Amino acid sequence: MTSTAAPLTGAGERMLALASRLFPLCRSITGDGVRETLREVAGRIPLEIHEVPSGTQVLDWTVPDEWNIRDAYIATADGRRVVDFGESNLHVVSYSEPVRAEMALADLRPYLHVHAERPDWIPYRTSYYTRSWGFCLSRNQLETLEDGTYVVVIDSTLAPGSLTYGECFLPGQSEAEILLTTHVCHPSLANDNVSGIVVLTELGAALSELPRRYSYRLLFIPGTIGSVTWLARNESGLSRVIGGVVIACAGDSAPLTYKRSRRGDAAVDRAGAHVVERSGGRILDFVPWGWDERQFNSPGFDIPVGCLTRSLEGEFPEYHSSADDLDLIGAERLETALQAALEILDVLEHDRAYRNLSPKGEPQLGKRGLYRGLGGPDPGTEQLALLWVLNQSDGAHTLLDIAERSGLAFSDVRRAAAALLEAGLLAEGP
Amino acid sequence: MTSTAAPLTGAGERMLALASRLFPLCRSITGDGVRETLREVAGRIPLEIHEVPSGTQVLDWTVPDEWNIRDAYIATADGRRVVDFGESNLHVVSYSEPVRAEMALADLRPYLHVHAERPDWIPYRTSYYTRSWGFCLSRNQLETLEDGTYVVVIDSTLAPGSLTYGECFLPGQSEAEILLTTHVCHPSLANDNVSGIVVLTELGAALSELPRRYSYRLLFIPGTIGSVTWLARNESGLSRVIGGVVIACAGDSAPLTYKRSRRGDAAVDRAGAHVVERSGGRILDFVPWGWDERQFNSPGFDIPVGCLTRSLEGEFPEYHSSADDLDLIGAERLETALQAALEILDVLEHDRAYRNLSPKGEPQLGKRGLYRGLGGPDPGTEQLALLWVLNQSDGAHTLLDIAERSGLAFSDVRRAAAALLEAGLLAEGP
Amino acid sequence: MTSTAAPLTGAGERMLALASRLFPLCRSITGDGVRETLREVAGRIPLEIHEVPSGTQVLDWTVPDEWNIRDAYIATADGRRVVDFGESNLHVVSYSEPVRAEMALADLRPYLHVHAERPDWIPYRTSYYTRSWGFCLSRNQLETLEDGTYVVVIDSTLAPGSLTYGECFLPGQSEAEILLTTHVCHPSLANDNVSGIVVLTELGAALSELPRRYSYRLLFIPGTIGSVTWLARNESGLSRVIGGVVIACAGDSAPLTYKRSRRGDAAVDRAGAHVVERSGGRILDFVPWGWDERQFNSPGFDIPVGCLTRSLEGEFPEYHSSADDLDLIGAERLETALQAALEILDVLEHDRAYRNLSPKGEPQLGKRGLYRGLGGPDPGTEQLALLWVLNQSDGAHTLLDIAERSGLAFSDVRRAAAALLEAGLLAEGP
Repeated sequence: MTSTAAPLTGAGERMLALASRLFPLCRSITGDGVRETLREVAGRIPLEIHEVPSGTQVLDWTVPDEWNIRDAYIATADGRRVVDFGESNLHVVSYSEPVRAEMALADLRPYLHVHAERPDWIPYRTSYYTRSWGFCLSRNQLETLEDGTYVVVIDSTLAPGSLTYGECFLPGQSEAEILLTTHVCHPSLANDNVSGIVVLTELGAALSELPRRYSYRLLFIPGTIGSVTWLARNESGLSRVIGGVVIACAGDSAPLTYKRSRRGDAAVDRAGAHVVERSGGRILDFVPWGWDERQFNSPGFDIPVGCLTRSLEGEFPEYHSSADDLDLIGAERLETALQAALEILDVLEHDRAYRNLSPKGEPQLGKRGLYRGLGGPDPGTEQLALLWVLNQSDGAHTLLDIAERSGLAFSDVRRAAAALLEAGLLAEGP
Repeated sequence: MTSTAAPLTGAGERMLALASRLFPLCRSITGDGVRETLREVAGRIPLEIHEVPSGTQVLDWTVPDEWNIRDAYIATADGRRVVDFGESNLHVVSYSEPVRAEMALADLRPYLHVHAERPDWIPYRTSYYTRSWGFCLSRNQLETLEDGTYVVVIDSTLAPGSLTYGECFLPGQSEAEILLTTHVCHPSLANDNVSGIVVLTELGAALSELPRRYSYRLLFIPGTIGSVTWLARNESGLSRVIGGVVIACAGDSAPLTYKRSRRGDAAVDRAGAHVVERSGGRILDFVPWGWDERQFNSPGFDIPVGCLTRSLEGEFPEYHSSADDLDLIGAERLETALQAALEILDVLEHDRAYRNLSPKGEPQLGKRGLYRGLGGPDPGTEQLALLWVLNQSDGAHTLLDIAERSGLAFSDVRRAAAALLEAGLLAEGP
Repeated sequence: MTSTAAPLTGAGERMLALASRLFPLCRSITGDGVRETLREVAGRIPLEIHEVPSGTQVLDWTVPDEWNIRDAYIATADGRRVVDFGESNLHVVSYSEPVRAEMALADLRPYLHVHAERPDWIPYRTSYYTRSWGFCLSRNQLETLEDGTYVVVIDSTLAPGSLTYGECFLPGQSEAEILLTTHVCHPSLANDNVSGIVVLTELGAALSELPRRYSYRLLFIPGTIGSVTWLARNESGLSRVIGGVVIACAGDSAPLTYKRSRRGDAAVDRAGAHVVERSGGRILDFVPWGWDERQFNSPGFDIPVGCLTRSLEGEFPEYHSSADDLDLIGAERLETALQAALEILDVLEHDRAYRNLSPKGEPQLGKRGLYRGLGGPDPGTEQLALLWVLNQSDGAHTLLDIAERSGLAFSDVRRAAAALLEAGLLAEGP
């Protein structure tokens, strides 16, 4: 694997195109929206689809009934639709049970949700584990509703079926696995989390073409219940998992963010922090709030899974509203996030300790063509990287240790190690 | 023990009232002023009074002769008192030997002490271990003295007697003891240290009504020689003492201060830092200067005793002068200091490790009534505290560890643990 | 050894005088310029001169042929010297092979080097390990050269001979050695590094008159090849070396700098950081760039050798140019650097752990004449130092540990320990 951008040619456009196809689908934690989403992903990378029956006990949880929806609306007595699922799938509270009723506006009001701050945005609401129903609409829309009786229809089914998730396994030289996951349970919300789905898809495509030291397992799962289900079904193999990254909210305008795992200093945390810090992004400590990292980092598993995002949940004003649409995400931002993910994996793939084979004094680099001739005061990055690798390669320090201590980029340190290896001045292993 | 303010109703007023009774007494490191002080304290909490004879060898020190004073003055030849002990007990250098003489002002001058900075304040001076005598007066007063001969009288006794200290023992479930001490050797100085005496007294009253995991030993002792004496007489029991707090200067307007013990990271230090930091106060590292913590933290004992104060010794301009009077201390400040002391002890009492009984993935809080329904982006303190306790309760992290890592208040973390315990999701012990 | 300035009387002037004699010499990594330099040093301190034949294999390097130069110039066809080695030895690229030719200006240009930024400065260039030749001149000078043919002469020899270095060994009570080194390979450059040579010389003179716990070995060596050669020839004795300091660039106007060794927390690093930090200087972490510390700190040796300088290489604009002349260095700056070096060694010499012989409570200092009588709030440095030494002397903390924790100067802590030792309150050893 290299960290060059080569395998990414056109990645931004490909991701945006996939995002456009995924955006309209009405995803939830179960149902056909997830299946259609996974079919799109499977068009780009090999994906195994799993169906887990409703009622299956998974850890402390139970796989819920499957939810599907065909239509929903609020109409005036004369049949005019004033709120229409056909216009936005956010209009219906996700997992709403079927309804077919005539109601006075006053009775309907408790089932209507508006955005707390913006009068023109439709909020996004769910009620997965408590049977309920409801509509979301903009406050402006609500204010146009006149008193009177309305026809209220939610043409949904909430019945035994299955929970669906997708898994892409890319074997490497080692059985040791790295998990890469994203949640696929949100309907028409672009940044959270169509952006995560398209970046993980493209990351899988890039990884599949690279030599791999580690094995990679990409999970496209509904939030919480999806990771809980996967963990329950794969508990016996978890000892192979050395870490992972949740990818989400990758398309908005915030700088990149790496949120550490519960352990805080796992290999993936150090790689994530190194790459994101150098990109001008921010590093956050673990909190047991967020996405599926909560489940992987629970104390009974303690798998070091960090999080690569731009905004965190709730940090951008459009979060969980109709304003989180395709205009919010950009090709270049998706590409930078993808690039960061590849660089993090590049660190994990290539971090190792070397031994300086000429450890007493500095070896004479000049006679090996590794030293500049008539020199000035500033050694330059290339020269410094050679000297740092030689100085620290006593078998106890890895390339990432050296990058952290020297302040140089991992890629520069890695390049220096390659040159020294070729010159016979370095050997692998402690 | 709870950290609610309930047991403190009226505490501020009670403390001020006791302060008013204690303020006029002429305390020193021995003598009747200490005895009267301890009698006042014994009116509020059960107090055992100890008398240790002069000449007793205590560690590297010897209990000195007992000092008592009835009267003292400087008078003109015609009998007019120009400096009068009756007006302020600060006028006489503490432990002054008896004097009865006529002296020219020029000869008297070396025995007269004024405040270095303020012309209207009387300084406070002592000469415990070097036989001497002297008067303290304001510079303004000194300047009114005309040349001539003065009658100088100190009607004191300095003779074998005893050193007096008070001890209040409150047994708990465990034999492990926490020391709470204050010095009782200063005459009419309100902040240093009538304030410490009244806060410790009220703290004892509050503790006596609470269930106690630990045993508490409250010491009302003269500075230095008192703690040295107590340590010498109780050396065999010191292994039971797990830490302690010196309380002093609790009434002035400075923010709360916790000064760490020599160890710096003892349980009491972490509890003290947590509580005082969250109150907006400051945390200071140990220095071997201050009050009786110097003796407890000496290397041969190394008992982790911190210090809860507002100003430190010497930090407020009125320190050790007649301006440190009752106007300097306030009921609300005394109460806040008392509250902080109770909260520190609350942390010590309730800090322990729990085990998450559903450690794989997050348990489904919703079905146990611990999860909010239709939720927005911000989990809120209560929800976060539940998740932090679940995430960290692997038996290795205590509630205080969790509070420190999460940035939440110990009281919030403790409340979450209680809810999870009740829901059967948590068990005590590692 | 004491840290008083007494042994340094006149040191600044002596150093400046030696600098004036050393400045004109044409030093390089071998040759007579080094020999004359060492002869001057040997006039002040006992110096053993070593000659190592060209061709000797030293670690990964080979001692090069010896270079000497008598004359060099560029002259017009009519014999007018337009560039003349007699005016500045910087005019010739160090280690230039002999040349005697007539060349058109156009053909000569690739052999002419000017300063990148300043038109009036002559740069300093070398070509030790690649046979080459060249002239350095100011850009102003270059611009006056008219097209035409020039006579080019470098009357040098580059032939088997030897590499020369000087060694001054000052035995102490212990065989454990401290290395003190400076590079002697630069021609007429005052700060880098005539200043280092004169400070190390005067430091040797001062050390020779002081009692010594450790042994000291002062090395006056050509850069890189000199330390490589010394290391190769002394490998069997390196286990005696507990650390060292490279001294260089000691005369410019920058504040003092201590650059840590590769280990970062060796005794010499802690001493260097303590002294330089308190002098208002800066502390830098190790980088494998700089002077001979690169060789000592290579992983196969890992000898903790730090660096005491003012500017680092390349940090002052005059670096490696004709502007680095005697005007750049000052007697007082050289003296302050010397003083800092002596103080660092003073810390190493006197840092040790003591035991408080009265560890339970504070011993009564007053009865031993160590306590002030009628006191105010501020204990003062002397009193605090006594209390810190007593409090921390449990055998586990050395005087430097105490100085670091207390924020007091090592010299104050050391003075307190001496007073307590004399009072019978302290004993040596853990």
